[in-house]
Amino acid sequence: MSSAAAARQPSSTFLAACRGEAVARTPIWLMRQAGRYLPEYRDLRSRRSMAELLATPELAVEATLIPLRRFPVDAAIIFSDLLLPLVGMGLAVSYDDGGPSVSNPLRSTRDIDMLAVPPASEALETTLTAVRMAASECAARGVPLIGFAGAPFTLASYAIEGGTSRSFTRTKAMMYEVPAAWERLMGRLVTILTDFLVAQARSGAAALQVFDSWAGVALGRDDYVRYAQPWTRRLFEGLKTAGVPLISFSTGTAPFIEEVAACGGDVVSVDWRMPMAWYREALGPARVLQGNLDPAALLGPWRGIVEKVDAIRSGAGSRHVFNLGHGILPETDPSVVARLVGLVHGEEENR
Amino acid sequence: MSSAAAARQPSSTFLAACRGEAVARTPIWLMRQAGRYLPEYRDLRSRRSMAELLATPELAVEATLIPLRRFPVDAAIIFSDLLLPLVGMGLAVSYDDGGPSVSNPLRSTRDIDMLAVPPASEALETTLTAVRMAASECAARGVPLIGFAGAPFTLASYAIEGGTSRSFTRTKAMMYEVPAAWERLMGRLVTILTDFLVAQARSGAAALQVFDSWAGVALGRDDYVRYAQPWTRRLFEGLKTAGVPLISFSTGTAPFIEEVAACGGDVVSVDWRMPMAWYREALGPARVLQGNLDPAALLGPWRGIVEKVDAIRSGAGSRHVFNLGHGILPETDPSVVARLVGLVHGEEENR
Repeated sequence: MSSAAAARQPSSTFLAACRGEAVARTPIWLMRQAGRYLPEYRDLRSRRSMAELLATPELAVEATLIPLRRFPVDAAIIFSDLLLPLVGMGLAVSYDDGGPSVSNPLRSTRDIDMLAVPPASEALETTLTAVRMAASECAARGVPLIGFAGAPFTLASYAIEGGTSRSFTRTKAMMYEVPAAWERLMGRLVTILTDFLVAQARSGAAALQVFDSWAGVALGRDDYVRYAQPWTRRLFEGLKTAGVPLISFSTGTAPFIEEVAACGGDVVSVDWRMPMAWYREALGPARVLQGNLDPAALLGPWRGIVEKVDAIRSGAGSRHVFNLGHGILPETDPSVVARLVGLVHGEEENR
Repeated sequence: MSSAAAARQPSSTFLAACRGEAVARTPIWLMRQAGRYLPEYRDLRSRRSMAELLATPELAVEATLIPLRRFPVDAAIIFSDLLLPLVGMGLAVSYDDGGPSVSNPLRSTRDIDMLAVPPASEALETTLTAVRMAASECAARGVPLIGFAGAPFTLASYAIEGGTSRSFTRTKAMMYEVPAAWERLMGRLVTILTDFLVAQARSGAAALQVFDSWAGVALGRDDYVRYAQPWTRRLFEGLKTAGVPLISFSTGTAPFIEEVAACGGDVVSVDWRMPMAWYREALGPARVLQGNLDPAALLGPWRGIVEKVDAIRSGAGSRHVFNLGHGILPETDPSVVARLVGLVHGEEENR
């Protein structure tokens, strides 16, 4: 972490834990903590579209801060969307209730060759402004702000499929049939994502999380190693200049979590499919682990949550940032989230 | 295998391989081999709805036989649908292009208590008739017929969610909140599924495959062991009386494949997420393995397919039934499937 960032967050438990330092209590934040499970967020979205939130820094900041007003979480994450870097590259991204979609997805080598690689300071200026404003608001509350972007494979699959996918057939066909085009696409994505993430850190993000949301859904181990890992590794290499803790997120990657961790990242965020003790065994005692409560556990009885939280904490040991193993579900009761934060913070009345 | 079944299939390479016997060449069949990638199937479906195919034994037999007319595959699988056992239990199942759905899903303990457990000979008579007719047609071609059903967890999740799901929130809420109701539901499903599968074997199915399509998507290891494994194990125990080889199918279960294999099954069908050599190492030399080509590999260049097939065959060793790691994709070129079957059968001109 740069000294400027350290000065902004002198006593962040979250940042200390990310750096592997001993902390007095386990920090916690929740993926999608600003989301549809919160009435304040639903209210905001009833008045403003997703596109408006993303295009208006003041609204993105408002969404970012919503969970901080409710819960004493140890970090905020900028309200943004994985697909934004694709817009500056020339893709048309839109948002509806079914999630984001690309109306002119990449279907040929020529489409890939036509992609622009504009500097983040221009193409992603709105997001960087939101990061700057949100970081200032978070600093006033003593909470560090996490910046983020997608990993190259996840961005490439969105760009090629045009949205979410079940079988990733077009992405794989491109990988297998035209490996040279795949490499050009991944190279350009690494360039723009490195630039974007470093710029978020310079704009005040105190940590950076890289979401490889689709790699473990789409790829087996050997294809991951061949078509995704080299580019994610290159991205993490380039992010070292950002001088802030780096978090690697993926899901569905348990059987090849070592290959995922080999890409880099001070912190490896793991899904809920295997017990935290298993991930600790796989990745060794030195790595900081983030996770890994099943989001669906929050829909069950409190005693089950306590049991799972205990197993996660004892499985992780000391180098641990508590989180879910994936994004919080819209059906979640905010009062259960409040209790969870208290439980992880060691407030005994929550047991 | 019963002597009657053995008499019907005196020289099946597929059945011998399922029993762990040495075979002259590796048998191959493909999950969803009667599917939308074949123009004959699309033609049939343009004239008849899914519901009609399932309700008319002659049409189900026609669909079952389509791939046999094109490819020298070593087994056929009855054309049917996982959700059919739910109909006799009192659920209303319908089919559209988005897949099957249940209009009156289980939402309460009372819903579960109201479920009927009719004998398969009545509730699933149409399917059993189709199995009888298809087995006879297959026997005339020297090809064994595989019967199938869903595993208890997969059927329960369909019954509770009402269709496919991304996060299985209702299923998990039922599991966690009302474990006694969950156990009643799973117990009834085991009863009806055992009865249905044994009846398929008595109707001529020479092997039985149990599809746990959703367990690895929905559940982490510990929840699998607690909420799914005991019931799948009980099902496999009950199926021993069928006297035919039993195949266990799942996907997304690589990190806990040993727990899956512990349920039973002469053959364990594994997905494409880890190399076959890894599964062989995990499950030991004695178990027969089925799989595990990534269906998307068939959309790529032939040399890549050959490379993957070679790795699968050398990784599996001798106790192996070649298959995909999941269902064939609608985009697949039938001529590539023909070449794949030839390649696995050792016809060198395919290399």
